[in-house]
Amino acid sequence: MADLLVVGSVALDSVETPFGRVQEVLGGAATYFSFSASFFAPVHLIGIVGDDFPSEHVRLLRDRGVDVGGLKTSRGRTFRWTGEYGYDLNEAKTLDTQLNVFAEFRPALDERLRRTPFLFLANIDPELQLDVLRQMAVRPRLVALDTMNFWIQGKRDALLKVLAEVDIVTINDAEARQLAGEPNLVKAARVIAGMGPKTIVVKRGEYGAMLVVNGAFFVVPAYPLEAVYDPTGAGDTFAGGFMGYLASQEQVSAAALRRAMVYGSVMASFTVEDFSLDRLKRLEPAEIEERYGAFHDLVRLEA
Amino acid sequence: MADLLVVGSVALDSVETPFGRVQEVLGGAATYFSFSASFFAPVHLIGIVGDDFPSEHVRLLRDRGVDVGGLKTSRGRTFRWTGEYGYDLNEAKTLDTQLNVFAEFRPALDERLRRTPFLFLANIDPELQLDVLRQMAVRPRLVALDTMNFWIQGKRDALLKVLAEVDIVTINDAEARQLAGEPNLVKAARVIAGMGPKTIVVKRGEYGAMLVVNGAFFVVPAYPLEAVYDPTGAGDTFAGGFMGYLASQEQVSAAALRRAMVYGSVMASFTVEDFSLDRLKRLEPAEIEERYGAFHDLVRLEA
Repeated sequence: MADLLVVGSVALDSVETPFGRVQEVLGGAATYFSFSASFFAPVHLIGIVGDDFPSEHVRLLRDRGVDVGGLKTSRGRTFRWTGEYGYDLNEAKTLDTQLNVFAEFRPALDERLRRTPFLFLANIDPELQLDVLRQMAVRPRLVALDTMNFWIQGKRDALLKVLAEVDIVTINDAEARQLAGEPNLVKAARVIAGMGPKTIVVKRGEYGAMLVVNGAFFVVPAYPLEAVYDPTGAGDTFAGGFMGYLASQEQVSAAALRRAMVYGSVMASFTVEDFSLDRLKRLEPAEIEERYGAFHDLVRLEA
Repeated sequence: MADLLVVGSVALDSVETPFGRVQEVLGGAATYFSFSASFFAPVHLIGIVGDDFPSEHVRLLRDRGVDVGGLKTSRGRTFRWTGEYGYDLNEAKTLDTQLNVFAEFRPALDERLRRTPFLFLANIDPELQLDVLRQMAVRPRLVALDTMNFWIQGKRDALLKVLAEVDIVTINDAEARQLAGEPNLVKAARVIAGMGPKTIVVKRGEYGAMLVVNGAFFVVPAYPLEAVYDPTGAGDTFAGGFMGYLASQEQVSAAALRRAMVYGSVMASFTVEDFSLDRLKRLEPAEIEERYGAFHDLVRLEA
C-alpha cells in the first residue's frame, strides 16, 4: 500500500441536469479524485480554496482519511463552476467559470510530499503540472496526468513538455483525437504514446473507458444504470479509483492495470447516481466489491 | 446446426467515406447478413433485385453456400442507396434512396422455407415483417427483427404488432430510446421487453453492442481497428454472425447468446475494414477464430 498525491481543483459547483439542480455544492477534480481514491490508499490533496469554503467540506474529506494539509485557504472566493447537461448527459455545457482564488494556485509541496510514490496531476494548467513534477525529490513510481481540450489547444507546448515525463494520461475520445491530430483512435493512441505516456486511458462517458498499453487494448464498459442524475466528476472519480487501486497493489502489472480500470469504473458508476459527492458519501466498501462483481458479470464471455 | 432464413434488402450502394468512394457496389441488409451468417450455418435469402443486378453478385452469395432460390429478379432497376460518412464514421448521411423494384417487394416463402427454425427479419416495412411471420407454417425456434427510426416514427402500430411476436430485436442506441420514449437505456430496454422481445441487442457503432436479457446486461466493445474504411453493413453483418452462431448451436442458452454477441462483433469488425463485402470476400474461417480470441483478450479482467 503506497501513498498517493493529487494536485488539482477544489470547487463549488452549480449543476443542472434533466433530473434536478444543485447550487454551490462540493466539486472539483481533486475533490472527486481524493474521495474516490481514499477507499483504496492513503491520499494527500494539494489545492486551494477561498475563505468562503464551507468547513463541512474539509471535514468530509478529513473524515475519509484524506490528508488535507496541502489544501490552502486563501483570501477570496472559492473556484466556482456552473454547468448543465441535456438528456444524453454526455457533455457538460459550461455556463460560467469563476476561477477566483484558483487563478493564483501555485502548488507548493512540502518536503514530505515530495517523495510520494503515486502522483496524479488533475486537469490544471500544464505549466503547473510540470512545476509539481519538478518539485518531486524522487521521481514517483507512477505519474498520471489528466488534461482537456482547453490546454490541448491553448497550451500545447507546455502540455507536450509535461506529457513527455508522465507514465499515464487520462483523456476523453475527442481530446485524444485532437491531441494526436488523428481521427482513428488506435492510431491516435500510438501517436500519444510517442509523446511520452506509455499507458493511455481513454474516457468514453456512458460507453466506459479504454486502456492502451504498448498497443494492447482493454475495454471496460460503463455500468448500465437506471438512474444517472449527474455525470459531473465521473472522470475524476474514475481516476481516483484507478490510481487508488494501483497504489494499493504491490506492482503496477498488466493485470493490476486491468483491475484498476474496473475499480475506476465502479467508483464512477456510483458518483453519477447522485449530485456532487452525495452517493460517494453514503458508499460502503462492500458495495464497491459487489459492483466489481457485477462488472465481471457484465463483460465475461461465458454466462 | 439449424437453417436460417433472412428476409430483407439486396442493393447497389454508392458510398463515400473520408477514405474513398465506391459506386454501385453490392450492398443491402440481407446481403451482409447472409454472407456473414454463411460462415456459421446454412442460410436462405428472400429478397428482390432488378434485371440490372450483376450476376456475379448472385454467384458470390451462391459460392458461399447461401441459398438464393428466394432472391427474385423483377423487371426494373435494383434498389439503390447513396450515402456518405464523415470522419467519425458513426452515422451515415443518406444522399439518395431509389427503392425501384424494392418498392414492390412482397416476400413469398415456399413450403420448404416456412419451416426454417431461425428467422431474421431485416430492416424492412414492419407490415412485411409481420406478413413473413404469418407465412411460417411452424413458429420458428428463434425470430429476430431489425428496425430503424423511419419505421418507429412512421409505422409505429405495425411495428408494435410485429415486435409482440419476436424473440429478439436489434436496434441502435438512439432508436431504442426513441422506441421506448425513455432517455435512460436501462429503462428503455425494460419498456421494449414489455413490447414483446425478451432479448434486446443494442447496436452502438464504434462502441460495440449491448445484450439485455431479462434485465441482465452483457456488453461487448467494438474491436479497436487501425483502418476503418466503411461502416456500411456493419449492423447487418453483426446480426448475421450473431444469428448464424446461434443457429449453429444446440441451444440458445445464456452462454450461447454471449458468444453470439462476440461472433457478431467479430464479423462486423471485418466488414468495416473495406468497402462493400470486399473484406468478407477474402475472409478465412481461421481469421474469425483468431479475432474471437483477440476479443477475449480485449475484455478479460485478468491480463
